[in-house]
Amino acid sequence: MIRGRIHMKPKAVTLLSGGIDSATTLALAKAEGYDCFALTLDYGQRHKREIESAKKVAKALDAAEHKVLSLDLRQFGGSALTGDLDVPKGRDNAKIASGIPVTYVPARNLVFLSLALGWAEVLCSRDLFIGVNAIDYSGYPDCRPKFIESFQKTANLATKAGVEGERFRIHTPLIHMTKSEIILQGDELGLDFSLTHSCYDPLPDGAPCGRCDSCLLRAKGFSEAGIRDPLVQPDP
Amino acid sequence: MIRGRIHMKPKAVTLLSGGIDSATTLALAKAEGYDCFALTLDYGQRHKREIESAKKVAKALDAAEHKVLSLDLRQFGGSALTGDLDVPKGRDNAKIASGIPVTYVPARNLVFLSLALGWAEVLCSRDLFIGVNAIDYSGYPDCRPKFIESFQKTANLATKAGVEGERFRIHTPLIHMTKSEIILQGDELGLDFSLTHSCYDPLPDGAPCGRCDSCLLRAKGFSEAGIRDPLVQPDP
Repeated sequence: MIRGRIHMKPKAVTLLSGGIDSATTLALAKAEGYDCFALTLDYGQRHKREIESAKKVAKALDAAEHKVLSLDLRQFGGSALTGDLDVPKGRDNAKIASGIPVTYVPARNLVFLSLALGWAEVLCSRDLFIGVNAIDYSGYPDCRPKFIESFQKTANLATKAGVEGERFRIHTPLIHMTKSEIILQGDELGLDFSLTHSCYDPLPDGAPCGRCDSCLLRAKGFSEAGIRDPLVQPDP
Repeated sequence: MIRGRIHMKPKAVTLLSGGIDSATTLALAKAEGYDCFALTLDYGQRHKREIESAKKVAKALDAAEHKVLSLDLRQFGGSALTGDLDVPKGRDNAKIASGIPVTYVPARNLVFLSLALGWAEVLCSRDLFIGVNAIDYSGYPDCRPKFIESFQKTANLATKAGVEGERFRIHTPLIHMTKSEIILQGDELGLDFSLTHSCYDPLPDGAPCGRCDSCLLRAKGFSEAGIRDPLVQPDP
């Protein structure tokens, strides 16, 4: 019996929130030939609906596995996204782009990447993907390239695999893209944006509020990309 | 009315497992004049009993607050401490000291420090304490000074406070101490060792197994310190 050569795909752990950026990142990791293990954190976010989106996106993009890990960051408080503060609405672009917003969750990406690293080590994966972006939303300190570079160094010192000479790589394919470039990239990869969720403070029926920073950035991105957002009803 | 000057103590977040090292670290942080906020992780460890010890230690040492955060690392697997593998028993010192043990939990200290950092940022604390030790148990990569230094750099890039020019400090007062030196230090600070728990695989009644690496290191430490371990019944 002659058997064909088996090509094992390399594994990647991809952080998946259910928003456009993380969904596009997952689509990119898949397109690059990785077998994707998606990790979603249920951290007590106000917009819990994004977890349902994450499940749909992971399924649509054939993730090898999708884990939803519970970690109640509400216990620490200090962020509009975990319920302590109000989500700002109707801010203009200049305001969104300046300073660190109240939607910042203390050390969130560091916590999430650390957990992704733990899973990657168990899976014998050396590649982590995260959809951070330093262009359109530079207010979060943990979205900057120098944070990611520093994390990668720390990751290789923190782990058995790192000590044994293997290198973890933190992939941030969107880090220098604008929101419209991300949307065009996702569109090119066939991503179904109707599965994604961006709103920080959805209406009781789950529909986006249309006025928080995340909704406004999404609308601007779709508008600049010249693509219609399937989540938004066209004007009659 | 004349009021005295109010001396506000600086706040510190101290990671507290319930073992000797973290309890001694908490006692040291308190002795250094910090108002201590103790953080314990319930991560699905086989030796859940240590969480009860952590509660007792936090209370005995007057922690300003004690949080027990749930995070089910069993979902990732890959460690004897979260149930996947057997806890080794009866190993000699040379064996304990060589290589990375199966009780290593992938990226554990990185995850725990990241969470401590998130809480510290909310509390406006800039000081984290962790009882890592690179002498008697050098097998864990995330107990080494170069990991801690790298984490501190990453922490200052990951956070709002770091970006705004404030510096987080990661204190590791035990890092160069032997187990017996730690026990002598704890004893000097009046720590009640009967409240602590070290065993990785306790008996059904909660008593230490006496044969896992952690029990053996504890016994060696007490023996070298010339102090009786209150958890061990004296020979009749």
